[in-house]
Amino acid sequence: MVHNTRWGILATGGIAKAFVKDLLKNPQTRNASDITHTVTAVASSSSSSRAQEFITDLSLPGMPKAYGSYEELVNDPNVDVIYIATPHSHHYQNARLALEAGKHVLCEKAFTVNAAQAKILVDIARKKNLFLMEAVWTRFFPLSVQVRDIIRKGGEIGEVVRVLADLSIANADGFDVSSRMVNLDLAGGALLDLGIYSLTWVFQTLYHTLPPSQRKPPSTIQSSMTKYPATGADEDTTILLTFPTTTPADDRRASHGIATTAFAVHSHPRGTPSIRIQGTKGEIQIFGPAFRPVKYRVVPVDEKKEIREWECEFPDGGHGMYWEADEVARCLRDGKLESERMPWEESIVIMEVMDEVRRQNGLVYPEKIESVEYPVAL
Amino acid sequence: MVHNTRWGILATGGIAKAFVKDLLKNPQTRNASDITHTVTAVASSSSSSRAQEFITDLSLPGMPKAYGSYEELVNDPNVDVIYIATPHSHHYQNARLALEAGKHVLCEKAFTVNAAQAKILVDIARKKNLFLMEAVWTRFFPLSVQVRDIIRKGGEIGEVVRVLADLSIANADGFDVSSRMVNLDLAGGALLDLGIYSLTWVFQTLYHTLPPSQRKPPSTIQSSMTKYPATGADEDTTILLTFPTTTPADDRRASHGIATTAFAVHSHPRGTPSIRIQGTKGEIQIFGPAFRPVKYRVVPVDEKKEIREWECEFPDGGHGMYWEADEVARCLRDGKLESERMPWEESIVIMEVMDEVRRQNGLVYPEKIESVEYPVAL
Repeated sequence: MVHNTRWGILATGGIAKAFVKDLLKNPQTRNASDITHTVTAVASSSSSSRAQEFITDLSLPGMPKAYGSYEELVNDPNVDVIYIATPHSHHYQNARLALEAGKHVLCEKAFTVNAAQAKILVDIARKKNLFLMEAVWTRFFPLSVQVRDIIRKGGEIGEVVRVLADLSIANADGFDVSSRMVNLDLAGGALLDLGIYSLTWVFQTLYHTLPPSQRKPPSTIQSSMTKYPATGADEDTTILLTFPTTTPADDRRASHGIATTAFAVHSHPRGTPSIRIQGTKGEIQIFGPAFRPVKYRVVPVDEKKEIREWECEFPDGGHGMYWEADEVARCLRDGKLESERMPWEESIVIMEVMDEVRRQNGLVYPEKIESVEYPVAL
Repeated sequence: MVHNTRWGILATGGIAKAFVKDLLKNPQTRNASDITHTVTAVASSSSSSRAQEFITDLSLPGMPKAYGSYEELVNDPNVDVIYIATPHSHHYQNARLALEAGKHVLCEKAFTVNAAQAKILVDIARKKNLFLMEAVWTRFFPLSVQVRDIIRKGGEIGEVVRVLADLSIANADGFDVSSRMVNLDLAGGALLDLGIYSLTWVFQTLYHTLPPSQRKPPSTIQSSMTKYPATGADEDTTILLTFPTTTPADDRRASHGIATTAFAVHSHPRGTPSIRIQGTKGEIQIFGPAFRPVKYRVVPVDEKKEIREWECEFPDGGHGMYWEADEVARCLRDGKLESERMPWEESIVIMEVMDEVRRQNGLVYPEKIESVEYPVAL
């Protein structure tokens, strides 16, 4: 039986557009014949006409409702799950609004502004028996799944000792002070916007590849930040994490994860790998931006062994967000509250790392967006 | 006029052999027509026959003296400069022996075991008007000179914001406990033996490229270490340095240097760059091991600009150590006490970084090799 998921889209910006475009792709083209997706409602906080414009622009089928408030959206009985596509400053308030209304939630990354907010959302989801997931779409790419499998099996690159993961965007001219990328009122800066992907690669390789019972948070978190002169947001953040074991689990050794992110340089100019997963027998190199990897290459140290490449296909010309949408649909179908591939606990550990990195470097967002109070008008 | 330098070789191991082989190459093949080198004496601490064997094996011309003690070597009036090729545990004692005897010194890296020892050697050299230099041969490669020039000029890769430099050797099986690589009595471990090259690349790109008056030690030093189970030496060390400016000097921004070193993984498998010097307009990638780079590649971010490659030639089949020997010869000829390309102050700052990294990770060598006392029999 094919299970259909009815989506409500909260916010109408660029990321919402990209997500919905992927939702519209035929799941069969990616061999997903067990699930389908429908957009049943879209909301803009500014006006229903803006939501209607979004529906019209994307030619959404089935006459979805257009709302001018998020409250109306989360109370629509024809919506199963709310996709939250606001800036991360707003995630806690928006996700909580949806959960309190009894709706399942897929919430864009970074999950929240701090770990305290993340924990409250998780508690509410657990109590109310609702699905909740941070929308780290990259984790659901077939490429990511394969890379994690290679690491878990251990044979091809051996024991993983070090991971270098970068997302940097070569915008040396900087951003306008009003840009959400550098606006502290929107929790702007490299860390939450780009660094989450560097951390995703460190965590999905050095942490998530261990059996859940053996996953341990970093034993040390060290970091350094350069601030964007005009606003004080971080523009260049480097994080050194030490994990107490290597993968496959070996607690004689620690492993190092180096997560970097910067506005001013480029993580992968002209085909340079943006991520290197270094094991005792070889390494996996990831090509393309950390958020949308397009190829991996397994490079054995032993020169007699062949270098192996695998390119990621994006069926039906998709951006790659449908794989996470499919995961959400299957979790809902199966009555799961969380995805094993992006579990609550791991989202919280990553938020705790970001909290600590900000603490070490004196990066504080305005009180109302750091607050766990609800509701707070932002 | 051609200036000849008369070398005394202190110790007869692999690195001494490599150095002397390069000394024997005809300087004209590398367009050095202003200087020549002669080996006038060789000493082994164990026996003169071992020194003689070294002379015979390498067919050293001019009948150099063979000594069975370092004391005899440093007192030979036909020697201008002593090349110290012992393990780094012994550098302080050996270099001091030579300086006290009034000889100029070229001392293998790591310079000493700690910064306190380095400072004393520098003080003695200054007082006695003697030349002294840490033998970081890589700095004198035409490739290194070119790379520093590109950074200084700033045009090709813009403002340098981040440098990733690694030397790791893919010896996952580990070393025998008696190996000097892991023997704490010889200050063994990744940091002093391999990490010095990672730090060399960070320093020669982010620090040395500034005018001397603007060079500032790292504003933060953060690090993490994995210990070799059998001996407690470090087998995997990662260092995150923050410098207060970028290069060319811009103190609105900081820069990050990430120096890594490990036994278990490979820094540059199958042609992967081992060093990335990341600027706002592009990056310089260094190929080959960090100690003996063979190629650099300038990768502009702008896809319309060509990628530029330059390969290092090693005239007369040399290993690449003659360029530092030529620098020593020219400094001696010109009456200089230190080389501008590897100044005392920079060797000391790097030793201070290594001291701090060891302090952060509880890595202590035996008291007699950490000692600044002299003489101490090791």
